[in-house]
Amino acid sequence: MFSSTGRLTDLICGNAAANEIWSPRATVQAMLDVEAALARASAEHGVIPASAVQRIVDACNADNIDAEALMTGAAAGGNLAIPLVKQLTAVVKSKDAEAAKYVHWGATSQDIIDTGVVLQLRAFLDLIDADLRALSDALVDQAQAHKTTPMIGRTWLQQALPITLGLKFAQWLDAVTRHRARLVELRDRALVLQFGGAAGTLASLRDKARPVAQALADDLKLQLPALPWHTQRDRIAEAASFLGMLTGTLGKIARDISLMMQTELGEVAEPAAAGKGGSSTMPHKRNPVGCAAVLTAATRAPNLVATIFAGMVQEHERALGGWQAEWEALPDLARLTAGALSNIAGIVPSMEVNVERLARNLDVTNGLILGEAVMLALGDAIGRLDAHKLVEGASKASVANGASLFDELAANETVARHLSRDQLKSLLDPANYVGQAQAFVDAAIANAHSNKQEQ
Amino acid sequence: MFSSTGRLTDLICGNAAANEIWSPRATVQAMLDVEAALARASAEHGVIPASAVQRIVDACNADNIDAEALMTGAAAGGNLAIPLVKQLTAVVKSKDAEAAKYVHWGATSQDIIDTGVVLQLRAFLDLIDADLRALSDALVDQAQAHKTTPMIGRTWLQQALPITLGLKFAQWLDAVTRHRARLVELRDRALVLQFGGAAGTLASLRDKARPVAQALADDLKLQLPALPWHTQRDRIAEAASFLGMLTGTLGKIARDISLMMQTELGEVAEPAAAGKGGSSTMPHKRNPVGCAAVLTAATRAPNLVATIFAGMVQEHERALGGWQAEWEALPDLARLTAGALSNIAGIVPSMEVNVERLARNLDVTNGLILGEAVMLALGDAIGRLDAHKLVEGASKASVANGASLFDELAANETVARHLSRDQLKSLLDPANYVGQAQAFVDAAIANAHSNKQEQ
Amino acid sequence: MFSSTGRLTDLICGNAAANEIWSPRATVQAMLDVEAALARASAEHGVIPASAVQRIVDACNADNIDAEALMTGAAAGGNLAIPLVKQLTAVVKSKDAEAAKYVHWGATSQDIIDTGVVLQLRAFLDLIDADLRALSDALVDQAQAHKTTPMIGRTWLQQALPITLGLKFAQWLDAVTRHRARLVELRDRALVLQFGGAAGTLASLRDKARPVAQALADDLKLQLPALPWHTQRDRIAEAASFLGMLTGTLGKIARDISLMMQTELGEVAEPAAAGKGGSSTMPHKRNPVGCAAVLTAATRAPNLVATIFAGMVQEHERALGGWQAEWEALPDLARLTAGALSNIAGIVPSMEVNVERLARNLDVTNGLILGEAVMLALGDAIGRLDAHKLVEGASKASVANGASLFDELAANETVARHLSRDQLKSLLDPANYVGQAQAFVDAAIANAHSNKQEQ
Amino acid sequence: MFSSTGRLTDLICGNAAANEIWSPRATVQAMLDVEAALARASAEHGVIPASAVQRIVDACNADNIDAEALMTGAAAGGNLAIPLVKQLTAVVKSKDAEAAKYVHWGATSQDIIDTGVVLQLRAFLDLIDADLRALSDALVDQAQAHKTTPMIGRTWLQQALPITLGLKFAQWLDAVTRHRARLVELRDRALVLQFGGAAGTLASLRDKARPVAQALADDLKLQLPALPWHTQRDRIAEAASFLGMLTGTLGKIARDISLMMQTELGEVAEPAAAGKGGSSTMPHKRNPVGCAAVLTAATRAPNLVATIFAGMVQEHERALGGWQAEWEALPDLARLTAGALSNIAGIVPSMEVNVERLARNLDVTNGLILGEAVMLALGDAIGRLDAHKLVEGASKASVANGASLFDELAANETVARHLSRDQLKSLLDPANYVGQAQAFVDAAIANAHSNKQEQ
Repeated sequence: MFSSTGRLTDLICGNAAANEIWSPRATVQAMLDVEAALARASAEHGVIPASAVQRIVDACNADNIDAEALMTGAAAGGNLAIPLVKQLTAVVKSKDAEAAKYVHWGATSQDIIDTGVVLQLRAFLDLIDADLRALSDALVDQAQAHKTTPMIGRTWLQQALPITLGLKFAQWLDAVTRHRARLVELRDRALVLQFGGAAGTLASLRDKARPVAQALADDLKLQLPALPWHTQRDRIAEAASFLGMLTGTLGKIARDISLMMQTELGEVAEPAAAGKGGSSTMPHKRNPVGCAAVLTAATRAPNLVATIFAGMVQEHERALGGWQAEWEALPDLARLTAGALSNIAGIVPSMEVNVERLARNLDVTNGLILGEAVMLALGDAIGRLDAHKLVEGASKASVANGASLFDELAANETVARHLSRDQLKSLLDPANYVGQAQAFVDAAIANAHSNKQEQ
Repeated sequence: MFSSTGRLTDLICGNAAANEIWSPRATVQAMLDVEAALARASAEHGVIPASAVQRIVDACNADNIDAEALMTGAAAGGNLAIPLVKQLTAVVKSKDAEAAKYVHWGATSQDIIDTGVVLQLRAFLDLIDADLRALSDALVDQAQAHKTTPMIGRTWLQQALPITLGLKFAQWLDAVTRHRARLVELRDRALVLQFGGAAGTLASLRDKARPVAQALADDLKLQLPALPWHTQRDRIAEAASFLGMLTGTLGKIARDISLMMQTELGEVAEPAAAGKGGSSTMPHKRNPVGCAAVLTAATRAPNLVATIFAGMVQEHERALGGWQAEWEALPDLARLTAGALSNIAGIVPSMEVNVERLARNLDVTNGLILGEAVMLALGDAIGRLDAHKLVEGASKASVANGASLFDELAANETVARHLSRDQLKSLLDPANYVGQAQAFVDAAIANAHSNKQEQ
Repeated sequence: MFSSTGRLTDLICGNAAANEIWSPRATVQAMLDVEAALARASAEHGVIPASAVQRIVDACNADNIDAEALMTGAAAGGNLAIPLVKQLTAVVKSKDAEAAKYVHWGATSQDIIDTGVVLQLRAFLDLIDADLRALSDALVDQAQAHKTTPMIGRTWLQQALPITLGLKFAQWLDAVTRHRARLVELRDRALVLQFGGAAGTLASLRDKARPVAQALADDLKLQLPALPWHTQRDRIAEAASFLGMLTGTLGKIARDISLMMQTELGEVAEPAAAGKGGSSTMPHKRNPVGCAAVLTAATRAPNLVATIFAGMVQEHERALGGWQAEWEALPDLARLTAGALSNIAGIVPSMEVNVERLARNLDVTNGLILGEAVMLALGDAIGRLDAHKLVEGASKASVANGASLFDELAANETVARHLSRDQLKSLLDPANYVGQAQAFVDAAIANAHSNKQEQ
Repeated sequence: MFSSTGRLTDLICGNAAANEIWSPRATVQAMLDVEAALARASAEHGVIPASAVQRIVDACNADNIDAEALMTGAAAGGNLAIPLVKQLTAVVKSKDAEAAKYVHWGATSQDIIDTGVVLQLRAFLDLIDADLRALSDALVDQAQAHKTTPMIGRTWLQQALPITLGLKFAQWLDAVTRHRARLVELRDRALVLQFGGAAGTLASLRDKARPVAQALADDLKLQLPALPWHTQRDRIAEAASFLGMLTGTLGKIARDISLMMQTELGEVAEPAAAGKGGSSTMPHKRNPVGCAAVLTAATRAPNLVATIFAGMVQEHERALGGWQAEWEALPDLARLTAGALSNIAGIVPSMEVNVERLARNLDVTNGLILGEAVMLALGDAIGRLDAHKLVEGASKASVANGASLFDELAANETVARHLSRDQLKSLLDPANYVGQAQAFVDAAIANAHSNKQEQ
């Protein structure tokens, strides 16, 4: 009922699809896929006999592999490829001793492990790409829907000036649009074959090195890089950094949502779901369970990125610790990012928005948040400095005696001379002082769409 | 054959005993142990009926728990305790509906999760303590054995002055001795009960709160802290920081060993073992597989510590991400530390020492590394400044013409006037210029012993 | 007007006293203090002529040092001690050429740099100790003063059950008490001399090594460790980890305060000060400027700790990067911690507490937060399960129709049968459902006091 | 002589040009440049009177600013812009009270600070770009020059198979080429204006918001983004991540060089320079001072990146700690990267290469490193398996009896039957077993050139 390794929390900050991509079985299968492709590519160029290919390819199935023995062998040899090749060879040998001689021909452990990771990464980035598109679409919809819904903008966790809820969505959206552009660049650079043999020269393949390498890349539908990159890890670091940045943005979204969900604010809520964040005895309580998972990922991701960056300082032609540090850190980071993304992508489209609370919260300061609007209008008539003094005085009076800023200002003769009560009321209406909010929403949506067309 | 979650690399940088302590099953069992103790403690003070206790205690076995359902439930509720209590309640209910009402009475999820982790941490620290003692003993033996074995001391990766191999062991030993002292302090502070109920006041237990808390602590053989610590995570942070520091020391040891193992140095080697780091076609190659695992841990540990530190900034009475970030980071850190420790503890006692290569490497510079020794002796006679100039000149000449420093100096009249050839030879013998090396070895061993007696 | 290096932000997250301890001048002076002490200790044991001592000691004044030349020289030599010794020697030589020969006798650069840092660390920990005591005292006072002031406890950023403001202070206090205990242990272990000469053997001091080392330690009032620790950095790592943990606790306090200061909550405020966080046009706005500084420190500290931990993996007898990584990271971390501590120590004693808002926020849910209290009381009469159902129903009704939980329950026949309106009112009074809050406050204060007596 | 703040180590891991860009004075000037441009842009669109512009622009000179007062004011207000605007206003007022009213019109502190940082970042990336080009050119030259210079390839710090020194340079080169491509993408995305006013809506500029924003961007020659990005920090994170990745690559280069510089290997050396890494008494010692600085940067950079990533989780419309954490972390990271880059760019073109030692080190194993080459040739004749066994046996014999592999093989009858002594000698010549080394060098150079043309 319990696996001997693994973590019960894999689904809290994770996502079943991503977990599957990085699962033990998928990891082994990705390496075996590389071995199978290597057999085909080698035979294509006469490096190994054609007769060996099918035997090897057939054996390259994770079902043939004993996970327990693999783990033990990995501890002795220092990586997973050594015991995997050993098991694979045994499987082939049990059917065809001759074919078994040609397993893993010309490759080094790291060729198999790295290319396997690249295959997993490709599948994973497809997943992320799809979720990012869905999130982008949902954010476009929400930004559009709430383009003019006024809410309070907050700086330093203090009420500042009005914005619109649509602007908040647009802010999130534009970051997502940038991440999508980064993803395109990352895929171009990172999804490449690793193939260099024991010291990165492919020496054992002699004059067949180049054609086999190209055939292997073609078989796996990966780009063939100019040269192997065993101890040049910037491609992996860029992948990690993309995931870390994305998780940072998702964390920011989760922070905003969870703050807006506070009992005392009640502006939005994660969509209700059975067993999700509710409490039978405290029905007022709506725990931001999804946001908590995202914030967990955002707490962890920066340091997983840092681990992979720290590992870049590698020794000569094969690393002593730096490469190995990627093995768990990259999948962990990927899982967390995927979980954070699917959480936010799940929350945004069906987020509950309490327009009434958004409006009520704009009233908490009795109008003080609109002082600037009045000051500007009044400034046109009596000069900015006098307007500033007047509104400042009224604001302080409002704080002192609890009256609304409207009442304070309406009672002022100078104000009355220049602004009618209706004009004053209009100036103190948050919806009238959201500046470029709508234009910014439009711009962010246009950005998202133009990004979509490019791809 | 493959678990759906988990990592095939758990044994590369890990250790079976530590993996077991932090395994999914053990994690669940630790939480269930807390639930069982809670039932006993509550009944002892009449909070729940005595008749319910045995039913609850009997059900508190991880075999009763469906791991898959637990993971899914955890994703919905945001932690493992919610679905665990649900399953536990169902198990009890299937035998005794009345008893089922009293499962988890008065506790909050975090009480169960945190105390469960403390129980795992206690078992884990016992393991670390034992391995640290073994490592300390092995280092004492090696420092003693090689107290006078000369080798070159290296600064900036350059040959500097002679030391002894024993001094190197003594350096490592003294750090281990300090870690053992830290471990004692850590255990005192960190191995305490977590029990506060929903908001940390134990309100639902009314006047039975204090006695139940004490009984629960006694039952689990944990200290009862002054008050709950749901969002005060310094205890966990201290545990993480201890593990991180220890791994840093182990990484330093692994760095030294792997550098000394370089083909061109060949001074020491990890003990040979079947399938461990050897190569059939390159018999000269002795891969430092154990050191690589330790260096991997040392690359990762600092950022796992940082994650837990970053998580300390928690909200009010229950965190939104910071606590949750510990769930995987602490076990990961623990596993890596345990793996690093068992690797080094395995290497040190049976490390192969190549005394001949140690000696040969002292000769690489043709005696230049002993220039200072001659300079000091000569300085007693002709003044430090003149001695300095003389030796500097001889050294440069030696570099230029490839002669040994002995030959250069022996040919010098001034030197000949003050030092016989035997005296010169003796001064250029590395074994005679290791300063306090032996005294330092003795001091480090004495420190290790006094630490042992204290405990 | 501007220094060529340095940071304008040093006071935002810093503190003038700490900045001073780690300033360029103080750094140089600390190293010169070590050189002066070395001259005295060496002369005491006849290693250098007594006549040289006063000349050297007199020259050991930072005013004699050209900072610009020091920086340039440091870039060439790789550390500050090389050009410092060069300048110091020149200064001595300008007065007494003979004495100049004995500057820095027997020491290596790292001896001077490390011992200098230890001297700075000692002064710095004195500062931290004093601020921690002041903070502890302030927290004791506030915990006592608000022992019974009810406020809402919040989990997941949602209102949960009542606590008291005193309990919140007590939570912070108890963490501070633990940090004070850690500080005592840290000082014992970390404030030691570094003195080993070029390769850590003190070989050039021959038979005077031990007495000179002891005299040097005595002169500087530092402990003499068993052996030098050039590449064993656990002492520095422990200092870093202490600072990181402390900053984590301070960050947690700042998080709580800034959340309670939100315009919509308004429960507390940082003490008002001229130009501090106020806004002339938005008088309702009270920016948590101090908390922001603390949260900045708490964002940065974990990774500064990680840097120092990562640096522990050092090469042989002198590190190539790992040691050097401490040079800016440790002072940065120290400055940030000191700034965070003085901010919190400044806020706590004069924090503005708005008891009226604390009370009003307890009313936000119309009494739902007290459902458990009623359920328990009712459970005594009608059984826990029926009580649960009844209160759950009333709570849901209250949410649905906006009535208070009191009205819903008071209208219920079963409730009326068992509880009078006064009893019900009392049960729904948050002050009556804070459980062990006061006992926990007392325990935390007792802990703080007993810690004080120990020292 | 000493600045009150700042660090004496700024040049060890730094670089004067980069230090200047991020210096206190330049930081202030960048903010003032934004204020001046704002005045021009605002006047252009009639938002402030044309008569005020020149007064404001004239005052925007860092010489007018009191750094001490700025630092103190920043501590009170929480950022540098508040006291800067205050001082700037006072300067303008001293000349023209009316003009002083229009200082900073419509902007918020963060607009000025962020745009100032973007201006600094632009200048800094120009510097990096130039250094990267120079490094790329030097690597092309070295790769070309040593395309066929054989050296030993090392994996696990053990001798493995031959490579060429040119291949090593080519590996470094190709990573640099990728970083240059990343830099282009980064500049496009990151060098944009920040301008949003108090809550990111530019409300106070009413209908002039858009034209003023565009004019401001044009004036500063920055792109105008779709909307402000006050709490969306992915642009800054991307800059940080670029710097971190680059430093990782530079760290890898420094690791390789410093390992090759070990006294026992002596294959290369940093170029000699007065006072740089030499030792008068130990002329054999060539401290890798430049590499140490790079490795220091590489130890620190990952955690500075992590800090900036961690800071991305920001609150609402203005952050409480996360933004502020960038203020020192980004310049620190930039300084370290620039220092690392100029160190490596300084070392590579004039690195001393000891071809004789490279050759000698290929002999250390008595030919064992070429066993594979013989095995392959022999395999063509007698089958791979038999060849493997034969060479394995000969290799083990060579290790056991100290004979060369050539002698062992030459004495073997089977070998003699299939390979002449000359053929055997040729097979055991490292230069003949470097596989694709030259082709890879050519490919890396072609990549570097094509990257150059693109820009």
